[in-house]
Amino acid sequence: MSEKENGRVTVVDCSIRDGGLINKWQFDDEMARAVFKAINASGVDYMEIGYRASEKMFSPEEYGPWRFSKDEKILEIIGDEPLNTKLGVMVDIGRVEERDILPTGESPLSFIRVATYLKDVKKAIALANLIADKGYEAFINIMAISTVNDFDLEAGLAEIEKHAPVTAVTVVDSYGSLDSDSTKHLVNVFKNTLDKKKVGFHGHNNMQLGFANTIDAIKAGALFCDATITGIGRAAGNCPLELLLAHLDDPKFSIEPIIKVIQDVFVDLRRKIEWGYLIPYMITGMLNEHPRVAIALRNSDEKDNYADFYRKLTTPECYSN
Amino acid sequence: MSEKENGRVTVVDCSIRDGGLINKWQFDDEMARAVFKAINASGVDYMEIGYRASEKMFSPEEYGPWRFSKDEKILEIIGDEPLNTKLGVMVDIGRVEERDILPTGESPLSFIRVATYLKDVKKAIALANLIADKGYEAFINIMAISTVNDFDLEAGLAEIEKHAPVTAVTVVDSYGSLDSDSTKHLVNVFKNTLDKKKVGFHGHNNMQLGFANTIDAIKAGALFCDATITGIGRAAGNCPLELLLAHLDDPKFSIEPIIKVIQDVFVDLRRKIEWGYLIPYMITGMLNEHPRVAIALRNSDEKDNYADFYRKLTTPECYSN
Repeated sequence: MSEKENGRVTVVDCSIRDGGLINKWQFDDEMARAVFKAINASGVDYMEIGYRASEKMFSPEEYGPWRFSKDEKILEIIGDEPLNTKLGVMVDIGRVEERDILPTGESPLSFIRVATYLKDVKKAIALANLIADKGYEAFINIMAISTVNDFDLEAGLAEIEKHAPVTAVTVVDSYGSLDSDSTKHLVNVFKNTLDKKKVGFHGHNNMQLGFANTIDAIKAGALFCDATITGIGRAAGNCPLELLLAHLDDPKFSIEPIIKVIQDVFVDLRRKIEWGYLIPYMITGMLNEHPRVAIALRNSDEKDNYADFYRKLTTPECYSN
Repeated sequence: MSEKENGRVTVVDCSIRDGGLINKWQFDDEMARAVFKAINASGVDYMEIGYRASEKMFSPEEYGPWRFSKDEKILEIIGDEPLNTKLGVMVDIGRVEERDILPTGESPLSFIRVATYLKDVKKAIALANLIADKGYEAFINIMAISTVNDFDLEAGLAEIEKHAPVTAVTVVDSYGSLDSDSTKHLVNVFKNTLDKKKVGFHGHNNMQLGFANTIDAIKAGALFCDATITGIGRAAGNCPLELLLAHLDDPKFSIEPIIKVIQDVFVDLRRKIEWGYLIPYMITGMLNEHPRVAIALRNSDEKDNYADFYRKLTTPECYSN
């Protein structure tokens, strides 16, 4: 089946949420407002504005506002702008308390996504039920998908299908290790196990395949796709939203507000924080490793010592994760 | 047919040749020697070290050594290093004279590639014959392939098949406008028209698809693929060689010398000259335009005025190429 026959692709912006992984969500209000206005004007369907987390677990001195994404903060950013885009947040298992999530009528949010590893899928289902009970549209993102085997994955997805009231379940290529074939394979495993839920895709750009894999995921039937403006995100970053919108060619979307906010905000931001394709991230991607060792390298004096880094990671006795 | 069944992929490095389009080939000998040594150590099959051109047509004051790639200059760079990699140059129609090409025994080169637009295919065939008569392995690259129709393309390829003594004919996505489907389609058109010659692919990265399209081209049957170290090349650059080698997973290739030369040469080079994904190049790619207008923008005071640039290029009455 071709892409067109599969139905309309829903797009989720996670620029601030994923981008905040670079700088502990220390974005100022001006940036957050500019991103919100651009996304809201572009026709993008969902905007995941940050993480929701308990202030008991993360210090507001160390972490910026979008680690918590409090309702009042969000209201401050959106002002009286009419909402075309659904607003939501991401939650991690065990990093949020029930009291952090007000019933939906008392919040500007309409959706909440649960990020989980496959091994924690039962906890994710419980959290998704709590979220749905409070009136939000719920989602589950399965992280580090390149490290799981099909047998366990199918069992976890079957649990979600049966017990989680979610709109979509997203394939998250946390390590940026997937290629075209593995992307299509995973989307097919999701599609075959999930009957009533959409399949989502969240790519990373370690091998310059964030966008290409997203297209391949769409071709395989993923209808709920994540992207970020200029690909902002931890390490190598994500599928760039501007490319995805250009590719989808859906009259609902307008690319011009995205290009404008790149000019107004992201050109300058890129001078201050680093993301995108770099050799250490490429190396962890090709080795199917978490990017944390590459991030540590980039934050050290050895940041450009690629050859030593490669040798270390490919010499078994020198490296233990 | 899967990639594996298609046969071994031959890799062509064109780092200096395509990279020189950024800085008029003003690379110093140290850089050229480091790149040559890395390529030669990596097992990459072919290295296109520069353009060969007549000094009557380009001033050696304005253009660096790799615009001319004289035999004596190449000998100076390779020294007494034993050659694992075949060395060659690219020639443009009408920019080289017969006297610039010595018989093969008198030159360190073993191959010469002719770059042509489809409309000049007969001139390209004549030049390829001259090259083959002098004893070199000859190739033809068809540029700006995203702007030709299949009817003309098939006619041109049929001429090449009949009259040009070349090993491969390469699909060149000069504008970085191809996606997965159009890449596969073009490789199929080439494959179906060329019986005795290999199909090649040369991607550009305007839409972050340089590497992904190269993989798709290989899947469709292209067996002769161009790449450059860290994707160095005009505007958005090319398919990164390090990614292609990692993907091919051919024991003939070693990625380590490439990672080392990136550390030693390309990290610093990138501080001096610009290439890679940037919004103006993405815009010309998505619009199937030559990148020259985007390059001009990047060389002006308006370099980051993406929104005006986009509006101008998408407003018919404001723009004539």
